[in-house]
Amino acid sequence: MISGRSKSLGKVYLVGAGPGDPDLLTVRAVRTLALADAVLHDALVSRDVLDLIPARARIIDVGKRCGQKSITQEEINDLLVQLASNGDIVVRLKSGDPLIFGRAGEELSALRRAGIEVEIVPGITAALAAAAGVQVSLTDRRTADQLLVVSGHREPSKTNSDWRHLVTSRTTIVVYMPGEYWSVAGDLRRAGMSPSTPCAIISRASSSAEQSYQTILGLLPDAPVLPSPCVLIAGETVAAATAQEMRSHYVDSALLQGASAPFEFSPEP
Amino acid sequence: MISGRSKSLGKVYLVGAGPGDPDLLTVRAVRTLALADAVLHDALVSRDVLDLIPARARIIDVGKRCGQKSITQEEINDLLVQLASNGDIVVRLKSGDPLIFGRAGEELSALRRAGIEVEIVPGITAALAAAAGVQVSLTDRRTADQLLVVSGHREPSKTNSDWRHLVTSRTTIVVYMPGEYWSVAGDLRRAGMSPSTPCAIISRASSSAEQSYQTILGLLPDAPVLPSPCVLIAGETVAAATAQEMRSHYVDSALLQGASAPFEFSPEP
Repeated sequence: MISGRSKSLGKVYLVGAGPGDPDLLTVRAVRTLALADAVLHDALVSRDVLDLIPARARIIDVGKRCGQKSITQEEINDLLVQLASNGDIVVRLKSGDPLIFGRAGEELSALRRAGIEVEIVPGITAALAAAAGVQVSLTDRRTADQLLVVSGHREPSKTNSDWRHLVTSRTTIVVYMPGEYWSVAGDLRRAGMSPSTPCAIISRASSSAEQSYQTILGLLPDAPVLPSPCVLIAGETVAAATAQEMRSHYVDSALLQGASAPFEFSPEP
Repeated sequence: MISGRSKSLGKVYLVGAGPGDPDLLTVRAVRTLALADAVLHDALVSRDVLDLIPARARIIDVGKRCGQKSITQEEINDLLVQLASNGDIVVRLKSGDPLIFGRAGEELSALRRAGIEVEIVPGITAALAAAAGVQVSLTDRRTADQLLVVSGHREPSKTNSDWRHLVTSRTTIVVYMPGEYWSVAGDLRRAGMSPSTPCAIISRASSSAEQSYQTILGLLPDAPVLPSPCVLIAGETVAAATAQEMRSHYVDSALLQGASAPFEFSPEP
């Protein structure tokens, strides 16, 4: 590998798998998956998305769930370098967008050190899918000038004290993996949010199992625990959220059948 | 319209057109465009994306550029309601994601008041496309715990004083439409960012005309003015940005030709 020429090397694509529904992959992500010799995916990447991987490709689950790691981040980095060094087209498939809470920074560093060519294919990050689910504009010139994206999932040694002062009354805050509601509610209150701030919890956004629940920050600890993965959206703009039962399904199947669909794969497996 | 039954009404889709490259539309966005009877689009939606609209659909440019409005937001709201009330499938096509700096909140309010069915199709927002362009992870457990998304484009009466205290040394901040560099640099400095903070300006992310420039906050006012639309990313994570000339193009055309591409439309018009 020391004198390996770049011609003989493969390439790594960091690809956003979006929130779960394969219809929410970008066209480029679908095209890129079709090229893969090997796919390394996270635990949160949906079955329907994995079904798009060509049969000849090697599929490696490098996911961690609830901190139980089957493989360390360093081992993932090494595997990416090793596979690409063998000349493979490697897709590193991450749920949502690869550059938001995806540890892409560490993988990029390792790949750069090894001189491996990298391309990034963006994806629909959970905040966007969840907001679409409850039909909430994340910014709104009437109520919300800015969007703050944080993670509730933290290393045990860390606190969220740096959320303090982060929030104005015109900030929409999206918490990925909010964890215990009483804990995140406390963090948001300490960060300056009023107990009357509207909140929505969105579970499994974009999937057929999507559920959401609307409340206010002061009552968040009493909210029902919805299945993971969840996103919490808090801010005045959430007041306009559409209740789940009012939402319609995507398109009438009659309409879809009538349309000249330019794609071959179906959203239903 | 007073006694209009919902059966006879059309539907409005708020669709994210992504950053410009039609390959970065979601599959659902492409499918939805194919259903449209009418498409209302912003000025920033690219020609290549508009080329995907079926010939039979009515195309209405409701874009504003540099504050010169051809049509007011209220008129856009009314037009959406009117077209859907006539039974049309209406696509409101917004660059990036419809729920970030897209005035979707006002359109959603108007459509709800009128009892029009709405569906939201997420898109790749500029922050994600720009970060992919310069290969910067927006969060990184080594350097960046949170992401703040703001707009540099503001109403004349407003200041960005509410950025103050918003920024910690572990925040990545993305400014959409940053405007005059000296002005946004001042805002970021007052918000608490150090003059040594790495910055990248990305112009026309994802297009063939993409350009980027890396600097530090203290030198931002001296940066070359790149063509609109631009995004500014500031934060420690930007230190790892890949210089433009080092980036490779997406995939070799040879590779693409060899792959069994499941899509019919081509990224080149």
